[in-house]
Amino acid sequence: MGFEYLTNVPLTQARKDYLALLESHGFGPRTEIIPVFESCGRVTARAVYAHICAPHYAASAMDGVAVTAKDTFGATETTPVTLSPEQFIVLDTGDPIPEDRDAVIMVEDIVKNADGSITIHAAAAPWQHIRQIGEDVCAGEMILPSHMTVSPAAIGAMIAGGVLEIEVIRKPRVGIIPTGDEIIPPCTDPKPGDILEFNGSIFSAMVRQWGAEAVVYPIVPDKFDQIKTMVAKAAEECDMVILNAGSSAGREDFSAKVIRELGEVLYHGIAIKPGKPAILGCQGEKPILGVPGYPVSGIIVIEQLLKPLIDHWLQAPSAPSQYAKATLTRPVVSGLKYQEFVRVRMGCVGGRLMASPLSRGSGVVSSFMKADGILEVPQGLEGYEAGEEVNVRLLSPRSKLENTLVVIGSHDPLLDELADMLHLENPELYMSSSHVGSMGGIMAIRRGEAHAAGCHLLDTADGSYSRSFIRKYFPKGGVRLISCVGRQQGLMVARGNPLNIQKFSDIARDGVRYVNRQKGSGTRILTDYLCKREHVDASAIYGYDREELTHTSVAAQIVSGSADAGMGIYSAAKLYDLDFIPICIEEYDLIIPDHAWDAPMVRSLLTILKSDAFREKILSLGGYTVDNPGEVIPV
Amino acid sequence: MGFEYLTNVPLTQARKDYLALLESHGFGPRTEIIPVFESCGRVTARAVYAHICAPHYAASAMDGVAVTAKDTFGATETTPVTLSPEQFIVLDTGDPIPEDRDAVIMVEDIVKNADGSITIHAAAAPWQHIRQIGEDVCAGEMILPSHMTVSPAAIGAMIAGGVLEIEVIRKPRVGIIPTGDEIIPPCTDPKPGDILEFNGSIFSAMVRQWGAEAVVYPIVPDKFDQIKTMVAKAAEECDMVILNAGSSAGREDFSAKVIRELGEVLYHGIAIKPGKPAILGCQGEKPILGVPGYPVSGIIVIEQLLKPLIDHWLQAPSAPSQYAKATLTRPVVSGLKYQEFVRVRMGCVGGRLMASPLSRGSGVVSSFMKADGILEVPQGLEGYEAGEEVNVRLLSPRSKLENTLVVIGSHDPLLDELADMLHLENPELYMSSSHVGSMGGIMAIRRGEAHAAGCHLLDTADGSYSRSFIRKYFPKGGVRLISCVGRQQGLMVARGNPLNIQKFSDIARDGVRYVNRQKGSGTRILTDYLCKREHVDASAIYGYDREELTHTSVAAQIVSGSADAGMGIYSAAKLYDLDFIPICIEEYDLIIPDHAWDAPMVRSLLTILKSDAFREKILSLGGYTVDNPGEVIPV
Repeated sequence: MGFEYLTNVPLTQARKDYLALLESHGFGPRTEIIPVFESCGRVTARAVYAHICAPHYAASAMDGVAVTAKDTFGATETTPVTLSPEQFIVLDTGDPIPEDRDAVIMVEDIVKNADGSITIHAAAAPWQHIRQIGEDVCAGEMILPSHMTVSPAAIGAMIAGGVLEIEVIRKPRVGIIPTGDEIIPPCTDPKPGDILEFNGSIFSAMVRQWGAEAVVYPIVPDKFDQIKTMVAKAAEECDMVILNAGSSAGREDFSAKVIRELGEVLYHGIAIKPGKPAILGCQGEKPILGVPGYPVSGIIVIEQLLKPLIDHWLQAPSAPSQYAKATLTRPVVSGLKYQEFVRVRMGCVGGRLMASPLSRGSGVVSSFMKADGILEVPQGLEGYEAGEEVNVRLLSPRSKLENTLVVIGSHDPLLDELADMLHLENPELYMSSSHVGSMGGIMAIRRGEAHAAGCHLLDTADGSYSRSFIRKYFPKGGVRLISCVGRQQGLMVARGNPLNIQKFSDIARDGVRYVNRQKGSGTRILTDYLCKREHVDASAIYGYDREELTHTSVAAQIVSGSADAGMGIYSAAKLYDLDFIPICIEEYDLIIPDHAWDAPMVRSLLTILKSDAFREKILSLGGYTVDNPGEVIPV
Repeated sequence: MGFEYLTNVPLTQARKDYLALLESHGFGPRTEIIPVFESCGRVTARAVYAHICAPHYAASAMDGVAVTAKDTFGATETTPVTLSPEQFIVLDTGDPIPEDRDAVIMVEDIVKNADGSITIHAAAAPWQHIRQIGEDVCAGEMILPSHMTVSPAAIGAMIAGGVLEIEVIRKPRVGIIPTGDEIIPPCTDPKPGDILEFNGSIFSAMVRQWGAEAVVYPIVPDKFDQIKTMVAKAAEECDMVILNAGSSAGREDFSAKVIRELGEVLYHGIAIKPGKPAILGCQGEKPILGVPGYPVSGIIVIEQLLKPLIDHWLQAPSAPSQYAKATLTRPVVSGLKYQEFVRVRMGCVGGRLMASPLSRGSGVVSSFMKADGILEVPQGLEGYEAGEEVNVRLLSPRSKLENTLVVIGSHDPLLDELADMLHLENPELYMSSSHVGSMGGIMAIRRGEAHAAGCHLLDTADGSYSRSFIRKYFPKGGVRLISCVGRQQGLMVARGNPLNIQKFSDIARDGVRYVNRQKGSGTRILTDYLCKREHVDASAIYGYDREELTHTSVAAQIVSGSADAGMGIYSAAKLYDLDFIPICIEEYDLIIPDHAWDAPMVRSLLTILKSDAFREKILSLGGYTVDNPGEVIPV
């Protein structure tokens, strides 16, 4: 326990110094000779010159006859010339031109005579319809310069030029070493405290995408000598090494010591977040990169520090990152000390590109999966305001962002099913949903950030859902309320209901650990309302401040035994095989702004809502009633 | 001989009808189950749901101690609380929270006492610094919808969610059958009439780039039964078949007959150029595509007709093609009957994107290699004028086009060496050179289409090079003439000089077959001048109208024996080991427009010209003199 980074070097400087150090030790591309037909996508190590001409002989470019041009001189429409069988040779396209002929006449321009001669009505120009030697490639000519990526057509040109093998830059081999006593190989039944080793799979997929080879070594326990032995082995067998240092801060000191004993450490601690504990080390010309154990930190460190080394090795500048201006939907607060990489979800609503910051937890790898872009907050900047226009590095192609249905609001698992159905039905359309609760959805629609919002807000005055909220928050109209489903709300409790919870007020009983939903969510509003109605003092409920963002995560806490009860929908309880005490059926509907009404994603969504397939899917989840999904509800 | 296509179907209709026919026979994606860690880049066959929560236990998010929050209530800076050793448990980040604890206090916020107790100065909120179960992924939640491409982070999320295998869309297997009696496997010493089989290598590289697998079958001779047997075998073993039909038109009838006997032919003949003889056939749900033998035709047919089938199979819309507006440098004349695909070379000069049509010969695979874009001329349009703004589908990234030094003008092999040195020195810079002769280069500079032009125009009045032409064609200035090299011009003749050619006028002798350069080239102007000076009647020279575009292609004709003599530079003669009769030393210089002077590519070019490395390279080629390359020559 207790830890201090040695350095806080700006990223650009770290990158520059690291490459300079490695190059001073001899770091750089190595080459290999491979068959040309296997070389697509590889980078030439040196210029490639043709060995032979292509075509390597004068060839007929047409089906026809080979002649000596001067035999045909004078032939016109009115003064045809007849050639005896000795004067012409029949040939097909691609056939070699006999040595004593210098022109080809197309079959269409020939009249065949009964005696075997032919008549022509136009003179042949010398070398007409003949593919000259070297028309495609000349022997000795440079086919490809050095350090060029081989395309399929270049493969053809090289083979045509008689080049069957070429020297290319060898793919660098990246060794990945997972370490940690608590790290176990991927499985489906880990024990508490076990951490599944998936970083190796992420990192190897990344480096392969960048053109390198990846070797994942076996997991090494937190033993200095064992780690040192494995790093030495990897440095021997590979061109670059990633030492994945586990998630405990103290452990990185350990890694730095290992690297220092084997070679040297240039920097320990980079001014980036996530990823600051990175270690930039090497053994001779082999980079050894100490990477934090949290997957998101690791991804950033590898992308920011290893990828430039791979790019340099491959000598092929990778496609430049695409950036786009987008409006930030929520503020981003950043430390002055670090350059921060914030993952954002993006979508295009009403012609504006939006960027919504995702969870910033370094352990949340799914946030990286959902990210459409990275907002880079420079060192020395405190962050950005909501509504500010920012420059986002795109991870998804812009066309995808423009075809994404942005749903922000209350969570329901049916949204995932809708996303699946939407994309299956229209491969070019996508859906992204963010779970910020019903009120959050209304606010997102007001700010023009979403095409649709899931909403189930109970008006405690008249028992209606969502309508009065729409009248209040959209006094001038501009949105439609679309019927979606009715759903069963209730209390989720452990299987067999061991604490014998029977009614809502039981959650306030001593010894009952409640888990709540976040403020602004429809389920929280319902819970607060039930407290009031049932005269339950919320402050007396143990865990009332413990907030989860989705029905499923509430259920997950209960099934794991860390909570005893939570409000949620029947389908979540069913998913986790929990007992369920029904409380009420509520309307879960969608708010769609008028400006999005005609967008193809919204059109498609409405078609799906009205489909039998949707009805069947929903009913199979359990706990839903379906009336007229997709219909506009009068507000 | 003699051939008629059955149909001339517009491309879009052919594509639509073909897919509809295939789907009616059951064409579509097949799936397979693979380990998740191998699934990067693959497409999910169905939605993937988490099996377990991640984290699957409540874990400490910090190094510190686990406590029961209510034990800490009331602690403040002024009223610290002391916890006995039984009340706290030391843990590291990632450790499981013991069942009876509900908060973590960071190590930094703890004061250790001598008796083993700890003192804290702030109350712990329940669940603080605890990573909740399912924070990343909840069991039962959808991780990825159907038909999504798996990213590295998604692999991490799936493994975290206990998903170790997933069902993905199997890569379609494309069988490629080369046919033709004259087709031989790639080699370096083909005989006249042999055609190297490289289409299989091009096509397999293409389909692999699109996500399919490729199997290239052995070359089949032009025997109906053998072709039929091979196609049946490929249709059995693969999901799609390419029957590469050789280059002779008559042969495609043959292919169509084979396909018709095995299944059916939908269309034979598509309204595209190149590629019109394509055959759209199938055996049941397996597409069998008859592809013309010329590589460029084959590339277009496969890209336009097979790729959509692969995309459909993979259910992952490929990145949309990028288009850019560019100015056409030369007219494009197209037939009304066909949609034409014209390969263009591109560059960005003075802020304008330029597109120069490349050779339209279907056999010229190197033209496809050099192409930066495809200009699609719609059916029913006669083409475009020079200077017209056209919409080009980009094959090279725009960033490459913006960093390409465009050299148009006289050919010299040293330009290829300069291209190599430029890119080696600056990996982000490229050079493209087009060989249109010295006058063509001057015109390209005048039209603002090039950054530099190679030029060696002799002023027959005073024996100077290029200067008077610049004064004439750039009367208002605006360009600089840059010294490059002096080069030895002369007559190239076969090794041993069998025809005993000793002086220029010998090329007019009877029995000497001359090969000339194209009009407008500096070498042609020199030749014409020499004719005049030596009183040689050009019309008496056999082959004076036979024009080649480069020194090397002239040499190639001589070495192959199809010509006896040609004017050219010493380095070309040396490359082909030809005898050489020196005639004169000429100045080969570069014209650079003022507006391009400060472009980074031009800066870099000038640095290279002045370098010792360039001098050494040039002298090693032979036949060059180097004085002050890179210096501005007063005009």
